[in-house]
Amino acid sequence: MEFFRKLLVDKNMVAIDFKKQDGLVPVIAQDYETGEVLMLAFMNQETWELTLKTGVVHYWSRSRKKVWKKGESSGNVQEVKEIRVDCDNDTLLIKVNQIGKAACHEGYRSCFFRVIKNGDAVVDGERIFNPDEVYGEKK
Amino acid sequence: MEFFRKLLVDKNMVAIDFKKQDGLVPVIAQDYETGEVLMLAFMNQETWELTLKTGVVHYWSRSRKKVWKKGESSGNVQEVKEIRVDCDNDTLLIKVNQIGKAACHEGYRSCFFRVIKNGDAVVDGERIFNPDEVYGEKK
Repeated sequence: MEFFRKLLVDKNMVAIDFKKQDGLVPVIAQDYETGEVLMLAFMNQETWELTLKTGVVHYWSRSRKKVWKKGESSGNVQEVKEIRVDCDNDTLLIKVNQIGKAACHEGYRSCFFRVIKNGDAVVDGERIFNPDEVYGEKK
Repeated sequence: MEFFRKLLVDKNMVAIDFKKQDGLVPVIAQDYETGEVLMLAFMNQETWELTLKTGVVHYWSRSRKKVWKKGESSGNVQEVKEIRVDCDNDTLLIKVNQIGKAACHEGYRSCFFRVIKNGDAVVDGERIFNPDEVYGEKK
């Protein structure tokens, strides 16, 4: 993880543009081996730095308004393998090693487990775990 | 394109949640053959429907505040091959046939043509065209 820590003290570090969207940028997580897009979430400056410091992905939860270490409940953390930035410096693409093989809180490999067919969103993704067993049943 | 047109008249059509972000949802464009993530942009209800009607991707330009048919200047349109929706119905993943083999206005295949290495954003993407020749030189 020395590689990522180094970024934080480098004055030439690329500046991510957090201004366009109230301090947030969208972040795409992609499986570093298969290329499957796993999820999209948001980062602010704090979680961007936490991600660099720790080498595991931290998002900003818009609904809970707090730091969200991906996998904090399920154990399915995302190890950073590669970070890419887009032409406008306002979107990140992070290639990850998805621990537990499932990124979605509904138990699927990818949050994009539904394809649109004939007007419906049809599930065709692979389910890896039962959310009730991982997070506890909803009462 | 009959397949996509059909979506517009289907009452059971999946409802995309445009409310979380002032009428917009983030949209990831991914090359349908290679799996390379090409770009991220935004859609509103209007450009979502335009995309379904026409079978080519239309975004909403946040900077220009107008409908943006991707490739309208360069000819590099994105033909829709598959549409996926995430678990919260607030993000789209569209697999596309990228005409012209380049999605980025800077001439690269992908907008994510820079990887973060030792604190710098280092270009390692493939450049397909010279933007000055496609869009005209900036005066």
